[in-house]
Amino acid sequence: MTPGRYAGRSKKFSEIATRVCNWGRWGADDQLGTLNLIDDEARRRAVACVRSGRAVALGLELSETRGIQAGIIPGRINPLRTMTHLNTPLSEDPEWICSNEDVVVMGTQSATHWDALSHVSYGGLLYNGHPATSVTARGASRCGIDLVRTLVSRGVLLDVARAKGVEVLEAGYAIRPEDLDAACELGRCEVQSGDVVLVRTGQMLHLALRHPALGQAAGTSSGSGPSAESSAPPARRDPVRYAWPSPGLTMDTAEWFWSHDVAAVATDTLPLEVFPCEEPETFLPVHLLHIVEMGMTQGQNWVLDELADQCADDGAYTFLLDATPLPFADGTGSPLNPVALK
Amino acid sequence: MTPGRYAGRSKKFSEIATRVCNWGRWGADDQLGTLNLIDDEARRRAVACVRSGRAVALGLELSETRGIQAGIIPGRINPLRTMTHLNTPLSEDPEWICSNEDVVVMGTQSATHWDALSHVSYGGLLYNGHPATSVTARGASRCGIDLVRTLVSRGVLLDVARAKGVEVLEAGYAIRPEDLDAACELGRCEVQSGDVVLVRTGQMLHLALRHPALGQAAGTSSGSGPSAESSAPPARRDPVRYAWPSPGLTMDTAEWFWSHDVAAVATDTLPLEVFPCEEPETFLPVHLLHIVEMGMTQGQNWVLDELADQCADDGAYTFLLDATPLPFADGTGSPLNPVALK
Amino acid sequence: MTPGRYAGRSKKFSEIATRVCNWGRWGADDQLGTLNLIDDEARRRAVACVRSGRAVALGLELSETRGIQAGIIPGRINPLRTMTHLNTPLSEDPEWICSNEDVVVMGTQSATHWDALSHVSYGGLLYNGHPATSVTARGASRCGIDLVRTLVSRGVLLDVARAKGVEVLEAGYAIRPEDLDAACELGRCEVQSGDVVLVRTGQMLHLALRHPALGQAAGTSSGSGPSAESSAPPARRDPVRYAWPSPGLTMDTAEWFWSHDVAAVATDTLPLEVFPCEEPETFLPVHLLHIVEMGMTQGQNWVLDELADQCADDGAYTFLLDATPLPFADGTGSPLNPVALK
Amino acid sequence: MTPGRYAGRSKKFSEIATRVCNWGRWGADDQLGTLNLIDDEARRRAVACVRSGRAVALGLELSETRGIQAGIIPGRINPLRTMTHLNTPLSEDPEWICSNEDVVVMGTQSATHWDALSHVSYGGLLYNGHPATSVTARGASRCGIDLVRTLVSRGVLLDVARAKGVEVLEAGYAIRPEDLDAACELGRCEVQSGDVVLVRTGQMLHLALRHPALGQAAGTSSGSGPSAESSAPPARRDPVRYAWPSPGLTMDTAEWFWSHDVAAVATDTLPLEVFPCEEPETFLPVHLLHIVEMGMTQGQNWVLDELADQCADDGAYTFLLDATPLPFADGTGSPLNPVALK
Repeated sequence: MTPGRYAGRSKKFSEIATRVCNWGRWGADDQLGTLNLIDDEARRRAVACVRSGRAVALGLELSETRGIQAGIIPGRINPLRTMTHLNTPLSEDPEWICSNEDVVVMGTQSATHWDALSHVSYGGLLYNGHPATSVTARGASRCGIDLVRTLVSRGVLLDVARAKGVEVLEAGYAIRPEDLDAACELGRCEVQSGDVVLVRTGQMLHLALRHPALGQAAGTSSGSGPSAESSAPPARRDPVRYAWPSPGLTMDTAEWFWSHDVAAVATDTLPLEVFPCEEPETFLPVHLLHIVEMGMTQGQNWVLDELADQCADDGAYTFLLDATPLPFADGTGSPLNPVALK
Repeated sequence: MTPGRYAGRSKKFSEIATRVCNWGRWGADDQLGTLNLIDDEARRRAVACVRSGRAVALGLELSETRGIQAGIIPGRINPLRTMTHLNTPLSEDPEWICSNEDVVVMGTQSATHWDALSHVSYGGLLYNGHPATSVTARGASRCGIDLVRTLVSRGVLLDVARAKGVEVLEAGYAIRPEDLDAACELGRCEVQSGDVVLVRTGQMLHLALRHPALGQAAGTSSGSGPSAESSAPPARRDPVRYAWPSPGLTMDTAEWFWSHDVAAVATDTLPLEVFPCEEPETFLPVHLLHIVEMGMTQGQNWVLDELADQCADDGAYTFLLDATPLPFADGTGSPLNPVALK
Repeated sequence: MTPGRYAGRSKKFSEIATRVCNWGRWGADDQLGTLNLIDDEARRRAVACVRSGRAVALGLELSETRGIQAGIIPGRINPLRTMTHLNTPLSEDPEWICSNEDVVVMGTQSATHWDALSHVSYGGLLYNGHPATSVTARGASRCGIDLVRTLVSRGVLLDVARAKGVEVLEAGYAIRPEDLDAACELGRCEVQSGDVVLVRTGQMLHLALRHPALGQAAGTSSGSGPSAESSAPPARRDPVRYAWPSPGLTMDTAEWFWSHDVAAVATDTLPLEVFPCEEPETFLPVHLLHIVEMGMTQGQNWVLDELADQCADDGAYTFLLDATPLPFADGTGSPLNPVALK
Repeated sequence: MTPGRYAGRSKKFSEIATRVCNWGRWGADDQLGTLNLIDDEARRRAVACVRSGRAVALGLELSETRGIQAGIIPGRINPLRTMTHLNTPLSEDPEWICSNEDVVVMGTQSATHWDALSHVSYGGLLYNGHPATSVTARGASRCGIDLVRTLVSRGVLLDVARAKGVEVLEAGYAIRPEDLDAACELGRCEVQSGDVVLVRTGQMLHLALRHPALGQAAGTSSGSGPSAESSAPPARRDPVRYAWPSPGLTMDTAEWFWSHDVAAVATDTLPLEVFPCEEPETFLPVHLLHIVEMGMTQGQNWVLDELADQCADDGAYTFLLDATPLPFADGTGSPLNPVALK
């Protein structure tokens, strides 16, 4: 299992990595990691959560002018959608059928997305020991996002912000296992094997999102419930402030996810983990624990405010979640519009 | 309601258009059309269909080299995914975290997709009388795809090919209402208000798809059931032949969809409707009946072979379908990876 | 000639527009405007300027991370170049030929560029009365950049900054005809029919460019000559400050260009004209005078610092200029890398 | 100099490579190769060729629908230009300034282009021994196209097709050194150190180009001169036939270019070299001789027909050539629109 892999790494990282490593757990050739924990039974359990039939979309609007990328990460360009047909007659009669079509260019990680297990490596190795060199200019010949044929399971919202009674966790707040437990308690739910866990920090307050269909600010609508008492500043769109400093997950929580056999995790932040990072010399350790050691698929920039309001309203923090990525051949991630069905 | 709108149109088109027109049905400002037929009750009905918990993805792989566009429609380029990060160190230690990221450029209608109600117009009008000029270079300010917040309902597979005992409908086969009824009978199901109907022709035989997770040809696996007896030629990848001539829906079937209060329709073909078209002088009439007159969202290039095999195996042709588009702001369509949960 | 075209426009704009209008001057169908002033004789005159054989490139480096667009103008994305081949073996022997190739996405106006005569219109009309509706989603069917087959002529540098003894003109400095005359005097040259005039403001100080081949800052090298005495702040890359406030051309100078029969004009600024604009209610009037009224092609973001240093050194402010655009079919502009040969 | 570099290569390749290798000739760190042969004197010599002042553009039109890529080389997509502004009002008055802008996505090698010296490698080495690994997902940190600040020199047209009295060389015709000598004789010119050589095969007959400004077919206009007698079939656009089989340069001609100290070479074909290749087991050997061994920049898909007609008319086969690439930072090639000034 490559015991010397942690040589030179921080004590904390090495100890946790040793405990949560899933290499070989699903065979030497496995490329799916903890998604193996999702089976028909898990999906039936998800279906059993549905009560009202209400559906909530969790994807950010895909827009150039309102995109969340602020030029911090090279290449992650906001979605630029342009028209290839615009009121273009398709026949000789200009009064007959005219069509509109568009083309888009976007970073696959630029908005609400999954990172594939091919997204990060260290020491030359991806999850399960697949060589980092298996990713080339043609894409990820190992652990590509298209191997995730479907991603449907029970979703559990852990509303850490609400559990702490704030609209948004403070800048750089380091989420601890106790915070996750407290959120479970708020939701009166228990995380089970194969669940997909959504951790809410409230950080999208800084994006001043509007619910397009409702024409109202998310910050406003999420003002109900415990957060109503908070004295958060009025929402103002600030993508840089959204990006960082950011509350987020810590190395210790990797063990929590591992011991609960979580299938995948997503948050309403850009880096997912607390940023700046816990140890100055250990950059983005939670990425490596999740993706490389555990083989756990990570989601970022998920819109959780409307869902959180609904969960607070009906008291049910579990739901059927469809978070199937787009099948980009050999892709290292995928935009998606996840849907929670309650 | 613009009675003179059909002046100069073919008799058949005008008569059907008059009968199926939904303008004003959900208010003068409505931009969702028949998707209004999907409500919580419809989604609960969908959930009630789930038995095994098996999930099937219906989206084509997104690939440049295996993309289905053959240059016939200007601007519909196949997905070109390139790397922006490739084993790129994110810290000063090259042995620590390295990342892989990608960017994609693609026609939103180039693979498995929904067409928004802003996709086509005629006589200067979109669905419900919205002006065609409301679509500009910035996109569709009316009837944009992002208005479809979620698209989850009961899905019904109408396997017309299997009902006729063939692997693929013959070139240019015009699907009639009777064919849809026969497929309902095969599936022992009844289409209800708010259902999303998937019409299978078998046309993707010409794409010689492989089920990526299975490593086998779709043509082969769909060989079980009635089609096994057919003497279809061995599958060979031919995107031009896939495009046309194509079996597909006819004007008459628009009335069938209208009378059954279908919420949306998708097929496993490129044009959706029979192509070449029914009347030489009436180009793509089914597009206009569905999208402009009825306000019914259309899907194309859906992969239905694996789903069809499963339906044939378990005898259940209804399922929970999540076909939520990506929220492209003001977009005229969206790629997606629909999921059927059985 | 549409005399009522100026109804409702500012007095100043209308008066100048009336005087500089070139509609019909080269025929009712003309799409080239003042580029018609360039002929073989003008090119021979340009060739006659060459002394040393030294060549200077005037194009900004095309880069995402060092691009000059700061998100102010929707859709003008910085050049994003990614690899499609990366050390990719082209034969079965991995030790034999491996190739590297790239693909780029960029706004055609995002860096050093020409605006085609189809770039702007007002009152529904392009230059020479061509209808604005002749530009569609397919591009400019009139006045496309590809009609400019070549653009080679005598170039004249009008170094307004140096003539005023400053490294950069002050924020929002409005260049007057007298400034152009003073720059001619500095250069001891006279602008002639068919010349391409390059107006230097020094504004690229705010981009802190480095001459890639030289490894030194442009701000430094342009410190020689009169500007050495200036007390300009040390160069710091600030694309927003580069964009505006910006020194630039004024309406009055349009008459100067017209009376000198200038073929095309370019500057080292983003808006070309003074910004904020001269009259609050008249937005970008110089664009309309140049492009629509005169049919004069405009260039923006040209790198003039190195050229200016050389002109100051050898005292010759005229040169052979090749500023031929890329032939984008029906394009409304083109990136280019102009070359001055001295 | 890595003498063992040719181990295992074909005898012919190894012998020629040994003779033409320029590694170290311009220093151990050189990244420009034979472009070092262009100096002020070479440019003055180029200027001295100009007689009439006539300018000819040599770039293919950049178009999706008329692009020359036929899907043979993955990632080399034809230029797709779409509008980001389309008659878009820039102020509150819709009758005042409206703008049109576009964005383009294209393979940098998809039309008329230069290949940078970073385009190909073998045995892990680029030109001059730079490691192939110096090219990463961020681009070519060695031998990037942006290092070519300007590329202006004397151009020499070697019209091999005309010298042989044919409109187009026959399929797979292998151009020999004698053919180049014969073309020099036709042009009554001698190739000198620092010249850029353009080799014409007539292969663009298969593209059925039209001169956009002239509205006539290139095949027609190139019918004057010796080729008029040929019985070439009428031009028909066939990008696949254009791509191959293709007449082109052979390994032996590398020595010819080396002994004449040619600075750069371009042809009117897609592969530049004869294709299929001379030796079945040696794929694209001329690429490796030119780019890796000699450090000679290569150009492909140059439009030479109109230039050839003019050279035949006035008898002058030398001219001032500006073939400066776009400065893509770390790019491996660049589209361009070269200009010959006669």
